[in-house]
Amino acid sequence: MMTKYTSGTPIDTEAVVRRFDALPVADFPFAHRFDGDKFIFSFAMEDGDIVYGLGESPRGINKRGWVYESYCSDDPFHTETKQSLYAAHNFIIFGGSKAFGLFVDFPARIRWDLGYTRQDTAEITVDGADFDIYVINGGSPREIVREFRAAIGQSYIPPFWAFGYQQSRWSYHNKDAVNAVIEGYDAENIPLDCVYLDIDYMDHYKDFTVSEEAFPDFAAFVREKRAQGIHLIPIIDAGVKKEDGYSVYEEGKANGYFCKKADGSVFEGGVWPGVCAFPDFLDPKVREWFGAKYKTLTDMGIDGFWNDMNEPAIFYSADGLKKALDKAASLSGEDLDLGRFFNLKDTFLGLSNSQEDYSAIYHNVGGEQVNHQRVHNIYGANMTKAAGEYFEKEFGKGSILMFSRASYIGAHRSSGIWFGDNHSWWSHILLDLKMLPAANMCGFLYCGADLGGFNENATRDLVLRFLALGVFTPLMRNHSALGTRDQEGYRFENPGDFRDIIQVRYRLIPYLYETFVKASEQNDLIFRPLSFDYPDDPIARECETQLMLGEECMIAPVYEQNVKGRTVYLPEDMTFVKLSGERAEKREMQKGLHYVEIALNEVPLFIKKGKKIPLCKPAMRTRDLAPDEAEFI
Amino acid sequence: MMTKYTSGTPIDTEAVVRRFDALPVADFPFAHRFDGDKFIFSFAMEDGDIVYGLGESPRGINKRGWVYESYCSDDPFHTETKQSLYAAHNFIIFGGSKAFGLFVDFPARIRWDLGYTRQDTAEITVDGADFDIYVINGGSPREIVREFRAAIGQSYIPPFWAFGYQQSRWSYHNKDAVNAVIEGYDAENIPLDCVYLDIDYMDHYKDFTVSEEAFPDFAAFVREKRAQGIHLIPIIDAGVKKEDGYSVYEEGKANGYFCKKADGSVFEGGVWPGVCAFPDFLDPKVREWFGAKYKTLTDMGIDGFWNDMNEPAIFYSADGLKKALDKAASLSGEDLDLGRFFNLKDTFLGLSNSQEDYSAIYHNVGGEQVNHQRVHNIYGANMTKAAGEYFEKEFGKGSILMFSRASYIGAHRSSGIWFGDNHSWWSHILLDLKMLPAANMCGFLYCGADLGGFNENATRDLVLRFLALGVFTPLMRNHSALGTRDQEGYRFENPGDFRDIIQVRYRLIPYLYETFVKASEQNDLIFRPLSFDYPDDPIARECETQLMLGEECMIAPVYEQNVKGRTVYLPEDMTFVKLSGERAEKREMQKGLHYVEIALNEVPLFIKKGKKIPLCKPAMRTRDLAPDEAEFI
Repeated sequence: MMTKYTSGTPIDTEAVVRRFDALPVADFPFAHRFDGDKFIFSFAMEDGDIVYGLGESPRGINKRGWVYESYCSDDPFHTETKQSLYAAHNFIIFGGSKAFGLFVDFPARIRWDLGYTRQDTAEITVDGADFDIYVINGGSPREIVREFRAAIGQSYIPPFWAFGYQQSRWSYHNKDAVNAVIEGYDAENIPLDCVYLDIDYMDHYKDFTVSEEAFPDFAAFVREKRAQGIHLIPIIDAGVKKEDGYSVYEEGKANGYFCKKADGSVFEGGVWPGVCAFPDFLDPKVREWFGAKYKTLTDMGIDGFWNDMNEPAIFYSADGLKKALDKAASLSGEDLDLGRFFNLKDTFLGLSNSQEDYSAIYHNVGGEQVNHQRVHNIYGANMTKAAGEYFEKEFGKGSILMFSRASYIGAHRSSGIWFGDNHSWWSHILLDLKMLPAANMCGFLYCGADLGGFNENATRDLVLRFLALGVFTPLMRNHSALGTRDQEGYRFENPGDFRDIIQVRYRLIPYLYETFVKASEQNDLIFRPLSFDYPDDPIARECETQLMLGEECMIAPVYEQNVKGRTVYLPEDMTFVKLSGERAEKREMQKGLHYVEIALNEVPLFIKKGKKIPLCKPAMRTRDLAPDEAEFI
Repeated sequence: MMTKYTSGTPIDTEAVVRRFDALPVADFPFAHRFDGDKFIFSFAMEDGDIVYGLGESPRGINKRGWVYESYCSDDPFHTETKQSLYAAHNFIIFGGSKAFGLFVDFPARIRWDLGYTRQDTAEITVDGADFDIYVINGGSPREIVREFRAAIGQSYIPPFWAFGYQQSRWSYHNKDAVNAVIEGYDAENIPLDCVYLDIDYMDHYKDFTVSEEAFPDFAAFVREKRAQGIHLIPIIDAGVKKEDGYSVYEEGKANGYFCKKADGSVFEGGVWPGVCAFPDFLDPKVREWFGAKYKTLTDMGIDGFWNDMNEPAIFYSADGLKKALDKAASLSGEDLDLGRFFNLKDTFLGLSNSQEDYSAIYHNVGGEQVNHQRVHNIYGANMTKAAGEYFEKEFGKGSILMFSRASYIGAHRSSGIWFGDNHSWWSHILLDLKMLPAANMCGFLYCGADLGGFNENATRDLVLRFLALGVFTPLMRNHSALGTRDQEGYRFENPGDFRDIIQVRYRLIPYLYETFVKASEQNDLIFRPLSFDYPDDPIARECETQLMLGEECMIAPVYEQNVKGRTVYLPEDMTFVKLSGERAEKREMQKGLHYVEIALNEVPLFIKKGKKIPLCKPAMRTRDLAPDEAEFI
């Protein structure tokens, strides 16, 4: 039973597609109050109650014991004490003796104190008086998810080939670099379906351009790669380079399509191309215009995109930089005390993604000038919507691969997400795992983390163990940052181990794709916390290193360095399957704790008693898979 | 069998106290070469071989699979991809089929590639041609530790009261704040022995001064607290404020006691007091002078110190800041492209602890002007030595509590260490645990991490779980940073849980003190990896969440949020003891994997079959303990 409570005149985020009659917020069934323009409500939690949700966000599957903030943030340090990542997924499930779900449909800041201030109390602060809150009562957490998901609409299903293995890096700077990646994988017989083009494929980072120098006759190159069974996936950034004569900028300026400042002039901020203007994606006309721009690339044969920097990330604004430089100039020649030194240093540090800049931006929402802070969390989602609306109209549903960094619930209907700029940290294997069910709860099924880790240097064993989890994530992409160690599988010693892992992915694709489609059609999760399935099992309830996958499986990746295996908890009797290349080794195991050996080239999988899953022969490309010839294990 | 190999004319670090006849480096028994002024040697590692050591350093007990750098660094982000922390502990043990130990006695940079570039190869690069390397062959890892420790001399033993519970914060700004802490703990009947004074107790951060305003009649206050059984522990920083008329600065300047620049002028860098000069602790005259300065505080009744900022940390140098401000001034009014923007931002970010500044510093080593980079890693250790030499002469061994942030092997004879500015991260419970045996290997027995975490906000459950590990660490100190959430035990709801945990510490002090003294006297470890004791047990070999403690115990703290217990591996039959306040619940358990419930107010301990340990009655102060009346469990 899902009930809507409305306060004031909410901005329509288009997150919910089902129609509800709204009750007044006065009827809201939790202790609540308005504090100025803030709406604050709270509920008590018993010892041992679990809070699920918040989609892409820091920390655990169980969100208790921390304070989170819904505020899309370009922050590449995904440490435990962060409060926000790139997305705002305002859905939580309180899994107490009587479970309920809460969706706060509100595009500005929300603070979720889930047992941080007091361990036994959740207090949620909505930073505004215009919002909808939906409460879902009745049923198990899984049933609550299904009811919520039915209300927000069916999740995006990408093309089949998007389940292939994907290799990315910031950047493969030119066609030679792209070819080298394909040749590197092909030479080692490691399957591959996609190669990514990060920002450097563009002409001076200008959206919808391709560098002629780096990629001469790009259309022919795309065709040639496609003939090899490889999809090239270019990045699209939110900011449009300010450059006279650059058609996207000129059109946007001429038509008033860019975000403004209070005085009506175009807001300008520095991103990769230097000074940029930011399309006002909240305006349907702008979405239509920007979405159609993707045609430049689809016309050249491109059929996949990733949208980036759409929180939006702003390295600096012209105004902010001027202020900082003026401050520095005024101090030149002075002997600074600590206070003034740190103030100056913080001024430069604070130039990026500054609150002052966000507050200076205005949007056109239904003809009204609306400050960015009121709609911050739907900016990126509307960029994705721009493309999604175009793709669906032009190519039909699910023909184009697309995923985004920033997101809000609703964007799950037209795109996936990736979990942003993680690190080559062992702990980020588990962070990936923990985000999967939470993202699923919020409708995002096509998702995954940068395997091997994006920032900083990876080790061979980290990449292998990360990939062994990635084998199960719908988006299986290895990605790494400029200046870090190369982490393509063929770059390390004994590339055969990488082949063994990635071949397992291809063997599982028929199963994974079927599970994905079913989850989309049935508004269900692909990945579930063990506590969803075994709510009365105390060990399963608190397990955050394993997940249920579909109706058949449990996964338990290795997430520590220098180990030959891991401890795993079986909440019921299962078959332990070690998959490696074309090999599959099976062993019946009983409910309980076990230490299982898992080599670097092995993928552990646990199958419930009486269940079977299909395994096909591996292939070098998804197009060469024969799902119909799968055997069952 | 410990063998010394010498190359060139090493600077005497005084790390090794035993005399050795040196062999020429040409006889060094590993593949080696000189590459310019660098000495590089390597050895092969079999799959499954373990590398131990490096004392206070990032990552695991098993150091394999990463590249470390010996370079004392003031870096508060102790993430997995860091290469250095505050210490340079150049001792490793290779635990292969034939174990051996290596101590590189060299006060400049060393790079330890322990299976990072290739998983099967260790390559160590000594950044200079003047060094001693000691190789220890024969015996188990534990025997290798003992032989090494015998060569570097007996470890520091602090006063008995230093095993009490200690509360710190940056800062308790005045006597009222200190009194409030004592009253807060006393009111909840939570034991306490020490309260720390961070930088704000000083007059404008000037070493060996006390703010008259914040602490009027400090000597009387110290006396009064001592009468309450509380020791006040002030901080001492490496940098001396440049201020005319400040006696420490004036004396240092007049006598040429400060580090110089190449031109002979005093090097000046900004630290807490603003512009500072840095005592040249490598000069015995300077040590004698600086060490005697502690008398100012010991005369007022102080009997414990922590030495900080002695890597040395330098927020900026006068020269560096001038360059940065000039650069900013020259760009004022310009429209910066991304390259110039990031260059400017990085200039300000790079002002702190800059290589350029370190390279501009010179020391007087035996009358010779020596660049700081050649001796960087013994600067902090020599600050501690300055105090240690004075304390021993004035008060006798072990009368004064002292520990340091920066350190080098050798400093273990006169002081402890703490593990620096960690975070309120759950992962830092395990980081603390992992550093304990490594620090012990290098001689540092009195050590521990900031319990509850220093940087960022802690949660109640994190502090409790962190303390439950801290119950066993010789230094049991709760410490947190300015601007973060208060984390004194009595500040949270149900302070009785904190009492239950901290009382367990006091009950264990007789055992912990005896174990400590024995480890010091026998050159042994307090904490051992399980693999030291169970080298043929594959699960024990790779366990990095449990430690052996003394001859009797195993510890296994809870290190995850929102759990009611943890999985523990018993490598042999043991008695599981849950300690909480005065309660002790015992259960016999068999070898193998178990899930054990551990509440937030409980400390888990495992005792080997046939072993017993003393448990005394808790008390509010160590002075009130009655170790002789201990019962045995």
